[in-house]
Amino acid sequence: MMKDIPYTFNISAATGLPDSWDRHYERRLSSMKGQFEDTAAMEAMIAENEPVLYEVYELKRPEVAGELLHGVSVIRPGQVGNEYFMTKGHFHSLLETAEVYYCLQGEGMMVMETPEGDWNVQLFAPGTVLYVPPRWAHRSVNTGKDEDLILLFVYPGDAGHDYGTIEIQGFRKLVIEKDGEVKIVDNPRWVSPERRFV
Amino acid sequence: MMKDIPYTFNISAATGLPDSWDRHYERRLSSMKGQFEDTAAMEAMIAENEPVLYEVYELKRPEVAGELLHGVSVIRPGQVGNEYFMTKGHFHSLLETAEVYYCLQGEGMMVMETPEGDWNVQLFAPGTVLYVPPRWAHRSVNTGKDEDLILLFVYPGDAGHDYGTIEIQGFRKLVIEKDGEVKIVDNPRWVSPERRFV
Repeated sequence: MMKDIPYTFNISAATGLPDSWDRHYERRLSSMKGQFEDTAAMEAMIAENEPVLYEVYELKRPEVAGELLHGVSVIRPGQVGNEYFMTKGHFHSLLETAEVYYCLQGEGMMVMETPEGDWNVQLFAPGTVLYVPPRWAHRSVNTGKDEDLILLFVYPGDAGHDYGTIEIQGFRKLVIEKDGEVKIVDNPRWVSPERRFV
Repeated sequence: MMKDIPYTFNISAATGLPDSWDRHYERRLSSMKGQFEDTAAMEAMIAENEPVLYEVYELKRPEVAGELLHGVSVIRPGQVGNEYFMTKGHFHSLLETAEVYYCLQGEGMMVMETPEGDWNVQLFAPGTVLYVPPRWAHRSVNTGKDEDLILLFVYPGDAGHDYGTIEIQGFRKLVIEKDGEVKIVDNPRWVSPERRFV
């Protein structure tokens, strides 16, 4: 068994990226089908060049209580129609688990909601610490013009990810550009929890 | 009951300090008796001006599994004899819980050890992310000349603090200045676990 010793990695001041990690993956637009409102714009972008929406750099730890999973996510600038690039977004499988984010670079928002349909949006700028309490699904959105949104994240080892609920109808709120400004608007496809299974 | 909603606070780019918190405390030298090797220097400093060694800014969350306790610690520059200012240091009461640190400013070290007597020291510089795995006691040390060492920390809500073990004999390693350089040396008062209760 490998000895389990403390370790560090460093966030480059120049790039905002970590200098070491165990796993890196990219999420492309084609794996986000149904998540953007403007499906025609989405299909056209997929046909043209399949852009990367975001990347994640993860450190590997045992996925058990007491451990803290951590890494850096990088959301690219861009839009699908008038909707900003964003992460897939999820609840934690173990719903009663929190997450802490620290914004290293860029500007954006975290769009959040509970299973009961409460919603909340918080702003990111460099130096912002965000606390996502237990029960809140969360999705990062890059509202910047040209710059990556780069976030350090920490969450409990046993949290897990539940993407399914969000995949069905997205979040209650969308973040779009309208008249050159960032707007938070209702997602027309979203159905309130009490009407969802009627 | 207050609704439990997401929140942010911001780390000031100018000072490295948070712009809001729920609890702030200072730890003065007199509450660290027995922790510095040079007791004469320590007593003289306490008699003279009782310096603050470090401050902690905490956000208040329920102390239960699934939550993440978080805040910012500020370790002042200075020495007691040739030993650098440092935090009291502790194990987590729930030993199998980790902690993540992010260095916002300054330079220093984290001195760590397990109940079995393994030790480890990691360096801090701005941008360093440190993972303290479960089981490792930890103490932050400011090895800078003039600057505060400022650390963002995140740990599980149910971790708790066990200061007792460290209070008895300190950590296995001390961080001192010698010939103008930072040195990691043995703590002469430290006794290995197998000999501790003979």
